[in-house]
Order: sequence, then C-alpha cells, then structure tokens
Amino acid sequence: MEKRYYPYEDFLADARSLTQKIDWKFDAIIAIARGGLSLAQLLAEYYNIREVYSINTIGYEDTAKLDCVKVFNVPELQDAKNVLIVDDIVDSGDTLEEVLRVLHQAYPAVNFKTASLFYKKTARIAPDWYVDEADQWIGFFWTEDLK
Amino acid sequence: MEKRYYPYEDFLADARSLTQKIDWKFDAIIAIARGGLSLAQLLAEYYNIREVYSINTIGYEDTAKLDCVKVFNVPELQDAKNVLIVDDIVDSGDTLEEVLRVLHQAYPAVNFKTASLFYKKTARIAPDWYVDEADQWIGFFWTEDLK
Repeated sequence: MEKRYYPYEDFLADARSLTQKIDWKFDAIIAIARGGLSLAQLLAEYYNIREVYSINTIGYEDTAKLDCVKVFNVPELQDAKNVLIVDDIVDSGDTLEEVLRVLHQAYPAVNFKTASLFYKKTARIAPDWYVDEADQWIGFFWTEDLK
Repeated sequence: MEKRYYPYEDFLADARSLTQKIDWKFDAIIAIARGGLSLAQLLAEYYNIREVYSINTIGYEDTAKLDCVKVFNVPELQDAKNVLIVDDIVDSGDTLEEVLRVLHQAYPAVNFKTASLFYKKTARIAPDWYVDEADQWIGFFWTEDLK
C-alpha cells in the first residue's frame, strides 16, 4: 500500500477542518490512546475545554473467533453531558465500536459523538465527523518525525 | 512577562533533546493532561511504548490555605515497573508534586520519574529531565496554532 507522510501542517489544517464540521456543543473530550492524544490536546485548547481524558484499548487475536478489543482506563467524567471521542483514524472500526459500547454502558445518561482525522470506508462504523478518507498508509508526524 | 511562541519545530527539537537526556528504561508513560498529551504521544512512538496513559488534575484556590491540586483518573497500569510522567512545563511544581504523591501511594512498587519541556527554577520540585528553563510565558503551538 502506498504510504503518505502526514506532517504537522496537514494535521493542523485537518484539525481546523474538523472544528468547522463539528456542529455540536460538548463539554469533555476523550482521546483514544495513543492515536487521539495530540488531536485531543489541540481541540481542547481551541474549545477551551479542561476536561480532557484518555481511554486505552488493547487488541488481541482470538484464533477461534474474531479479533477482540479490550477497553480499559475508562475515565471518570466530572459533570460532562456531551463528550467528544477523538482518534487519528477509524480503520477497521473495531476499536471505536468497543469504546462506544463500554462508554455507553458506563455512562448511559451521557451523549457521545466521535471525530477522527481519517476514516476507511470499509470500517464497521463511521465517526460522526472526519476529514479525509484513508486509502493509503498514513505516516503521522508523531510516528515519523523523531525517527 | 515576555511571551515566546513555541512552534512545532521547537517542540520536535526539544523532544529529541529529551530522548538524549533520559538515561532510563521505562515501560509506560503517563501524560499530565492537558499539557503533556502531545509529548506523550511523540515519546511513546519513539520508544515504541503502547502503555500510554493520562492523569487529570484540577487546581483550586483555598482562600484559607495554600492552593490545592486534586488528582483524578489515576490510570490502571498493566505490568509497568518503570513509568515516565510527562508534562509540558513544571511551573509552581504543585501539580507534579501531588501527581507523584498520589501515584506513589497507588503504586508503591512502581518507579516513577518525570520529564518536561520546561522548568521554572522557582518550582517546588524539579523534574528528573527537562530541556529548557522557562523565564517567559510560553505560547505552545497547541494553544496558539488553531486560533
């Protein structure tokens, strides 16, 4: 698969594009670690939101069944009612789907919506907002620049 | 106080400088949110560490006493024995001090060390590693660039 280097400048432009698409008021942000961490920080500063959390996932192969995702470190939300979940890319959608399931179960009264920089059309679920469809391997600056 | 704009390029150079200073093997990273999120992501990719967590703090003024810091969302560490705590700046040191106290209490068998981009000499505690002393107001790119 072709590889696209994704520099900070593209990230900034795409984050701006996301802010123009997101037509929803939210009071907290959850980053799916590691992918969503930088995006969460940038958006939190833009929206002046101090409630910024992360959530962890581990993917593991179960040879007998489908691939599985374990979600942990579910954040303690303060008084948040509308929470934006962010990630860099929605690839298979497995991670986002399981994160949403766990968060809905933990916080049935909270509204969750999702945003990502990239989305693959073959994913199981689509984020509410995204910037680009990914048909290449994305070399994000946070992976590439310190090499 | 003079203001220094801190672009992504400086952040990248300082993160590289941090990796040259940190003479310690660690198996997990905790970002103090929001300030340490982007740094945690960059370092995690560099060190190929998947255990990347965040921790939250709220500062509040107690008029009768000193300013207080409440720490919450203490992460569930998997099997980590050596954990690097990262933040953008150690200013008064109140946040880092309280984060360390809470983490030592929660995980008495785990070793914690600390790293930041900036450090003020007037802070109550110094991080184990830092890049620059801060004598200006720092306008980090994640705060400035989407404005």
